[in-house]
Amino acid sequence: MGQVAKDHGENKPLGGAGLRGQSAGETSICTVGKSGTGLTYRGYDIQALARGAEFEEVAHLLLKGSLPNSAELEAYKAQLRAMRTLPHALLEVLELIPADAHPMDVLRTGCSMLGDLEPEDGFEHEHHVADRLLAAFPGILLYWYKFSHEGLRIDTETKEACLGGHFLALLHQETPSELARRVMHVSLILYAEHEFNASTFAARVCASTLSDMFSCVTAAIGTLRGPLHGGANEAAMAMIDPWQDEAQARQALLAKLAAKEKIMGFGHAVYRTSDPRNVIIKEWAAKLAEEAGDDRLYRVSCEVERIMWDEKALFANADFFHASAYHDLGIPTKLFTPIFVCSRVSGWCAHIMEQREHNRIIRPSADYIGPAPRHFVSIQQR
Amino acid sequence: MGQVAKDHGENKPLGGAGLRGQSAGETSICTVGKSGTGLTYRGYDIQALARGAEFEEVAHLLLKGSLPNSAELEAYKAQLRAMRTLPHALLEVLELIPADAHPMDVLRTGCSMLGDLEPEDGFEHEHHVADRLLAAFPGILLYWYKFSHEGLRIDTETKEACLGGHFLALLHQETPSELARRVMHVSLILYAEHEFNASTFAARVCASTLSDMFSCVTAAIGTLRGPLHGGANEAAMAMIDPWQDEAQARQALLAKLAAKEKIMGFGHAVYRTSDPRNVIIKEWAAKLAEEAGDDRLYRVSCEVERIMWDEKALFANADFFHASAYHDLGIPTKLFTPIFVCSRVSGWCAHIMEQREHNRIIRPSADYIGPAPRHFVSIQQR
Repeated sequence: MGQVAKDHGENKPLGGAGLRGQSAGETSICTVGKSGTGLTYRGYDIQALARGAEFEEVAHLLLKGSLPNSAELEAYKAQLRAMRTLPHALLEVLELIPADAHPMDVLRTGCSMLGDLEPEDGFEHEHHVADRLLAAFPGILLYWYKFSHEGLRIDTETKEACLGGHFLALLHQETPSELARRVMHVSLILYAEHEFNASTFAARVCASTLSDMFSCVTAAIGTLRGPLHGGANEAAMAMIDPWQDEAQARQALLAKLAAKEKIMGFGHAVYRTSDPRNVIIKEWAAKLAEEAGDDRLYRVSCEVERIMWDEKALFANADFFHASAYHDLGIPTKLFTPIFVCSRVSGWCAHIMEQREHNRIIRPSADYIGPAPRHFVSIQQR
Repeated sequence: MGQVAKDHGENKPLGGAGLRGQSAGETSICTVGKSGTGLTYRGYDIQALARGAEFEEVAHLLLKGSLPNSAELEAYKAQLRAMRTLPHALLEVLELIPADAHPMDVLRTGCSMLGDLEPEDGFEHEHHVADRLLAAFPGILLYWYKFSHEGLRIDTETKEACLGGHFLALLHQETPSELARRVMHVSLILYAEHEFNASTFAARVCASTLSDMFSCVTAAIGTLRGPLHGGANEAAMAMIDPWQDEAQARQALLAKLAAKEKIMGFGHAVYRTSDPRNVIIKEWAAKLAEEAGDDRLYRVSCEVERIMWDEKALFANADFFHASAYHDLGIPTKLFTPIFVCSRVSGWCAHIMEQREHNRIIRPSADYIGPAPRHFVSIQQR
């Protein structure tokens, strides 16, 4: 290689790698780390939403801009419920995806294929597409899962009125408990939106070329798939699952810390002192453990949280207590991150629509650090 | 909605919407608008590469970091040629995609499905995945195209040693001319790489979560699909195709300009006075018109170029003369942007690998312009 030229040229210099702390646009959807407990959706505090609302109210808030009244909520839930059936060609594609595929890859392909079959013909249909994706993802995921893992061709419609109950009913093929339904509402609300995180930003970059919504959401799913973004709750589950009690957890965790292993589910890129979502999911994880009559994972989780704070001054983030909560809902660990998709698609689509409203193509520059100009030598002379 | 709070908080203010002129990272792959004719791949001028190299030499340069010698080039071409066969499950998926699907959606789904079937199990396989995608895209596109449009199940292997010839052989089911092969080399070289354009940036955002290469390329395809990014050559073709001669072109174009219609294929976000790729593809478009014995589109294109310069001081970019060139190669207009994918995947994958080498998650901030904090009212009170 030729000489290396460090060239910042006319570009504004990087404030920090990865655009950290650098504004990449305006949004009216969400604040992270600004006011109250640190997370708001369109001005409402996350804790109030998670305690007082159903997930479909929050999806309505994010996608349509306001909390619905009772009649609007019932209409919206009925509308979403009517959009759960999947086209036959999509079911055939799902049957062709092997059991050992990464479930996030299944959602990525399922989303893309749905866009082949039901394209967004003009942005005037954007709300329809957003609702369709919201309604369809549990069926896409679980049709594949039940077919590939259990040989079952499930019906992707259930009697459940809400997305969380629908997800559990598809997974377990039985009616979920009231508590299970409520925990799903809470969990889906907590994961619904988080400003310009990497997957949402990928969706906005895609949207900025005026591409269709299926392309944007497909890009977001692939981005969330990365272990630095989604997947922390799966990693937390993998860590705590073998620990039988607090004593074993303490011993094993201290050994990990001594070996400088990264512990997933702690700390946050934006929050400084706590993640406002943790206290909420922790409460519900406790209730689930009580209902299950087996609080091993919950107690182990509490011990890990204590040790991480005492030893490293790191707080549990939204992902950590999701591990025991999802486990106690009978959800296989490999489906944890896909649930994140089922929820976050509401935030993604809100951002895609917002990007379209005041669009300019997102095309940054780069600092060149490669070879200086060099003379081309034809292959005969090389 | 509540009160609107304009809050730039602690974020560095936006230099320009869409991160224009804002550095989002370092690269050693490409410069745009910096030296020589304005476009270099790893230090080599685009005009020298397009005049003196085969596309596979350039793909090798981008992906492996250096121009190959003769033995290396032959080995690389043989390797790519051996990677053209598609798994049966992918062919079945392609048969399920309807004829009226957007060809970019077909590539997006095909890429995603290939990732389900042949996942990248660890970054040590990244070169294999990049080569596999490079080798597979013409077959993915044209298997779908020939099946859905002509009812043919084609063999995705051909005797053609190079990607461009392979593409034409799959499309026409006959051996292409030497001139046609050479033009495909040139075209694929011109489209191979262009720094932090939107699709490449989307691929890097996805890569920054340490997601797999199929996810990153799927995100890039969806981003390139947008009319503000890919598709300018298709739009140029749609415009010039009805014009029978220079006089008709002049009259119709002036009417469009008077109506303030946007003319695709002219100007550029980064280049100021000319696009270095235009002069090259224009030369080859002329040769193709001569070989075809029909220079109508070429003459019309020259007239449009003249008028756009005289009237608007806008220069033709890489896309404009691609319209008549691709047309004279017998390529249907709807396949123009997918050829861009077949080429640009080399640049995308080079950027994905570079992002992984010095990674930090790309997670910018946003300026909040939404409702101020507001009190949550339960649905019973709404």
